Amino acid sequence: MRTFKLTLEYDGTDFSGWQLQSNAKRTVQGELEAVLFRLFKKRVVVIGSGRTDSGVHARGQVAHFRAVSDMPCDELQRAFNFNLPVDITVLKVEEADSKFHAQLSARRKTYSYTVLNRAYPSALLRRQCCFFPRKLNVALMKKEAAAFVGCRDFSSFANVDPSRRGDAVRTIYSLQISKRADLVRFVIESDGFLYKMVRNIVGTLLEIGSGRFPPGSAVRMLSARDRRVAGIAAVSRGLCLENVKY
Amino acid sequence: MRTFKLTLEYDGTDFSGWQLQSNAKRTVQGELEAVLFRLFKKRVVVIGSGRTDSGVHARGQVAHFRAVSDMPCDELQRAFNFNLPVDITVLKVEEADSKFHAQLSARRKTYSYTVLNRAYPSALLRRQCCFFPRKLNVALMKKEAAAFVGCRDFSSFANVDPSRRGDAVRTIYSLQISKRADLVRFVIESDGFLYKMVRNIVGTLLEIGSGRFPPGSAVRMLSARDRRVAGIAAVSRGLCLENVKY
Repeated sequence: MRTFKLTLEYDGTDFSGWQLQSNAKRTVQGELEAVLFRLFKKRVVVIGSGRTDSGVHARGQVAHFRAVSDMPCDELQRAFNFNLPVDITVLKVEEADSKFHAQLSARRKTYSYTVLNRAYPSALLRRQCCFFPRKLNVALMKKEAAAFVGCRDFSSFANVDPSRRGDAVRTIYSLQISKRADLVRFVIESDGFLYKMVRNIVGTLLEIGSGRFPPGSAVRMLSARDRRVAGIAAVSRGLCLENVKY
Repeated sequence: MRTFKLTLEYDGTDFSGWQLQSNAKRTVQGELEAVLFRLFKKRVVVIGSGRTDSGVHARGQVAHFRAVSDMPCDELQRAFNFNLPVDITVLKVEEADSKFHAQLSARRKTYSYTVLNRAYPSALLRRQCCFFPRKLNVALMKKEAAAFVGCRDFSSFANVDPSRRGDAVRTIYSLQISKRADLVRFVIESDGFLYKMVRNIVGTLLEIGSGRFPPGSAVRMLSARDRRVAGIAAVSRGLCLENVKY
């Protein structure tokens, strides 16, 4: 039995997210397992570093599976890319330690979020950015973003079960915001993300940057530890899982 | 009667090119005219700087139409973007001189062509680049590309009627090739392009860069003035009309 580590790129637009679903929906995990079924003639489970939602992209998602096979890694990569649909690419196949687990061994993840900030949308970028036409004060957003960096309770920024609130503590190592022409890009690195946490943080920073929430809101919302006080989630198409560190 | 100049961005993937067709195919011109019909309750013809083929993109296509209207340009832009499908964006609407003609007044055009040069494709870039897995000698391609710059007869690089061969003389002002990570990008500026000329030139340079044609081929092919001697056209999805100068 060997353990294979996959590094994946996908365009989330036409997927109902990462996770296999009982209904006939198209998922990234489902497509990967379909190829493995073709190769090995039996079900092989693929485990990702985490689930990505419908519409969310990946430039460096990591997954693993275990199988009895003597196929070299580069041949397995070619077999994947030959059989997968065009919106998933296997960037790398490596053999990993038998104890490697894509989800449980993950130490850090980085997500990016891209916003198109101008009065009209973009035909060419539409699948991979969030169109936000209201004027943004990027300097203010950067200042507010500092509140999220460090070990914090992110209850206000995650759709979590209130009875499990103690679980909402995470460490954000960095949250960078940069602007280049009409594109505002967020890059966030953490030891782990709660459900919709990046999109809730970005959505809130956009409300602050456009003047709907006053300066100081980030600190106030964090300390409230109540999902109802923070902004709504930014749309999924702007989000991309950039990499996972082990 | 006023003349309006439009600057357009579109994702060519799901269009049968620019030009309106008698069959029910989806075209950029057709979509623009459908919006104008809705606004003005009669047919208004939209004329582009040139036709782009099925699958070819634009970041700066220019078109014009003439209409009796007192609508301000920015309002017209909003009406276009509100009514157009998501794969076309009107970047700018300007009022132009009554003699302005998007095709006949054009002096220079710039196209880009993007190649992904690595062993496996890209899910996120697939709609806007040509996947070319064979190893490329970019230094050699740059050297060969110099043969195309200047006033030349491009009969070998255009699908033109042989009886009209004298019409194949064009001036290429610049042809730049750059490589950044796995992406090789061509940028070509000319006083006008023949049918499939950019894709035929890029296709030929890729054959030279990958060793299928020997060094010196570009000069030899140009002087042959015979379409049969040059390489095949590179796929349409890598091509993008960047801008048109007047």
